[in-house]
Amino acid sequence: MRTPLCDTLGIDVPIIGFTPSEHVAAAISRAGGLGVLGCVRFNDADELDKVLGWMDANTDGRPYGVDVVMPSKIPTEGSSVDLAELIPDGHKAFVERTLAQLGVPELPDGTDERAGVLGWLHSVARSHVEVALRHPIALIANALGSPPVDVIAQAHERGVPVAALAGKAEHAVRHVDNGVDFVVAQGYEAGGHTGEIASMVLLPEIVDAVGERAPVLAAGGIGSGRQAAAALALGAAGVWTGSIWLATREYLETMPDSEPMQQALVAASSSDTVRTRIYTGKPARLLRTRWTEAWAAPDAPEPLPMPLQNLLVSHAHNRIHAAADPSVVSMPVGQIVGRLNEVRAVADVVADLVGGFEAAVDRVAGIRRA
Amino acid sequence: MRTPLCDTLGIDVPIIGFTPSEHVAAAISRAGGLGVLGCVRFNDADELDKVLGWMDANTDGRPYGVDVVMPSKIPTEGSSVDLAELIPDGHKAFVERTLAQLGVPELPDGTDERAGVLGWLHSVARSHVEVALRHPIALIANALGSPPVDVIAQAHERGVPVAALAGKAEHAVRHVDNGVDFVVAQGYEAGGHTGEIASMVLLPEIVDAVGERAPVLAAGGIGSGRQAAAALALGAAGVWTGSIWLATREYLETMPDSEPMQQALVAASSSDTVRTRIYTGKPARLLRTRWTEAWAAPDAPEPLPMPLQNLLVSHAHNRIHAAADPSVVSMPVGQIVGRLNEVRAVADVVADLVGGFEAAVDRVAGIRRA
Repeated sequence: MRTPLCDTLGIDVPIIGFTPSEHVAAAISRAGGLGVLGCVRFNDADELDKVLGWMDANTDGRPYGVDVVMPSKIPTEGSSVDLAELIPDGHKAFVERTLAQLGVPELPDGTDERAGVLGWLHSVARSHVEVALRHPIALIANALGSPPVDVIAQAHERGVPVAALAGKAEHAVRHVDNGVDFVVAQGYEAGGHTGEIASMVLLPEIVDAVGERAPVLAAGGIGSGRQAAAALALGAAGVWTGSIWLATREYLETMPDSEPMQQALVAASSSDTVRTRIYTGKPARLLRTRWTEAWAAPDAPEPLPMPLQNLLVSHAHNRIHAAADPSVVSMPVGQIVGRLNEVRAVADVVADLVGGFEAAVDRVAGIRRA
Repeated sequence: MRTPLCDTLGIDVPIIGFTPSEHVAAAISRAGGLGVLGCVRFNDADELDKVLGWMDANTDGRPYGVDVVMPSKIPTEGSSVDLAELIPDGHKAFVERTLAQLGVPELPDGTDERAGVLGWLHSVARSHVEVALRHPIALIANALGSPPVDVIAQAHERGVPVAALAGKAEHAVRHVDNGVDFVVAQGYEAGGHTGEIASMVLLPEIVDAVGERAPVLAAGGIGSGRQAAAALALGAAGVWTGSIWLATREYLETMPDSEPMQQALVAASSSDTVRTRIYTGKPARLLRTRWTEAWAAPDAPEPLPMPLQNLLVSHAHNRIHAAADPSVVSMPVGQIVGRLNEVRAVADVVADLVGGFEAAVDRVAGIRRA
């Protein structure tokens, strides 16, 4: 299972795994893929620096990447205190009322709370890039499309290629025009920020639109070797996976209190997701739980624009996480969640993707010959 | 490009083509696939009988099928006059007002108007089945899932297999439990009635859920050989295509006044569809035009349940069709519409699907060996 992308990135199999967990990212890289660490959880660049130091020591010299969240248009900036003044009281009251109705308790006094908003700020994302470029990273990906051209230039100066997510062919072309090296074609079925065009249609459209100018990675709906084979048949140079790494044992090493979330994922079917603006202000696919249902009710307010919506719900996310109730989870995940039926080791997931790919290709090659 | 389905159905390539045009259906069958004629346009069973007689004479002895629209739960029955009384005046006024705003003229006096509702009635769909079974059909497909078990038994008595569309794995299992022979896995990206799970996720889920009990056909997003290869890699026994046949020369032989519709399809991108209840009362993907946009406006009423919504809009559809304005089309089509860039001959479309499939499989087989 080798494509030219393997040589470009120095990996064995064209499987890119996005995850907020350094333990998962390192395990993906050690298994021959490319682990990509999501940086949005790091409000403090020094904390990211330490974690990337850990990655350097735990990837056996295999390549890894980082993922930042940088809107192409710079949104409202400011400290979380300034921004909080822009949030309507009605929205705050709805969140408080909803948490009470869902039985989500207050945090204990003295809890050291993360301010969930900061990673979504442009300045913080820039500090992530600066810190990451001090480490031997193999890729910088931006979840919200093309980063500003000076950020791309900064990465290229250090010899680091840049990937950008795209949900439409015209966006993919714009990214490549801006100097982006890889396009991640993110289909409707994907978790997190996503558009409306499904992978089956989007992927070959983007492959044709960018042509020889950039390899395209398939994101959205990839959780098995059959799906990897389908993605490569559609013209992808590799697969970009995310949701499947949430249900791994290594995830618990980074976030040991994530068992209720994993239980909720394992129980969910492919119908149990919803595409909504309640997580960040932009449409993102989340696990459907009592929390997302409350926001879909007729009395719920419209979500706020990025970055205000994440600021509005970040305290709620902390309370929801602490409540440890699988029925009230707030977690981005794709429709592939229906395939997550147990918590597994990262190396087993990689091995299954490769084995399933080989079996699927052998099957279609038999149909080709028949 | 042969699967066991080819032997079961007596076809050369596992490409099933759904179309309301007998000229297209016959051309698909002559090209080695299975043309499936949509029956919903026939209010009068005798008219269907005549058209199937034409099919018998124009398919060179190659197999063909029919597609009926039969909800598993029998909806409101009655003549169009009875049913019309159930339509709120506010809905009628909205339609009239909207047509005026869109510049869609009244029909000329004396126009012989089709009552568009009848094909959606259960009794009419039953008459379609009875007429079709007098012809040497190779398949009866039901666009709305499992037909009643007595209809399945009636088909089986004549040796005719039954296919049913499914948008969820649990529905597919229920269809097979009812005696359905083939499942059509209809992904979110498909035109017409469709669910929310995209093909990349839905198809392997349905393949695994029904196992050896029934072959699964992939519907939704299939318009090129690469997509056919992806579908077969995901476990499909064949592909079910619909939208791509709307932009064929043969379509104009059946419906010569469809050039404005074809112009609209050729101009559309994959972003130019919308999943809405305005066509039949159930969610269906349509071309996004000024007509669908009017129904998405804040002042638009909620669509009525099936079969009332189609009765409400059937006169509007006739006026829209006669207006011949590509910006006000009412046409079910999938996201693959972005690929329809010219009007082609059916045989060329089939040849491209087969050639593209072969090239895609050769490419992934190379990746497998590398």
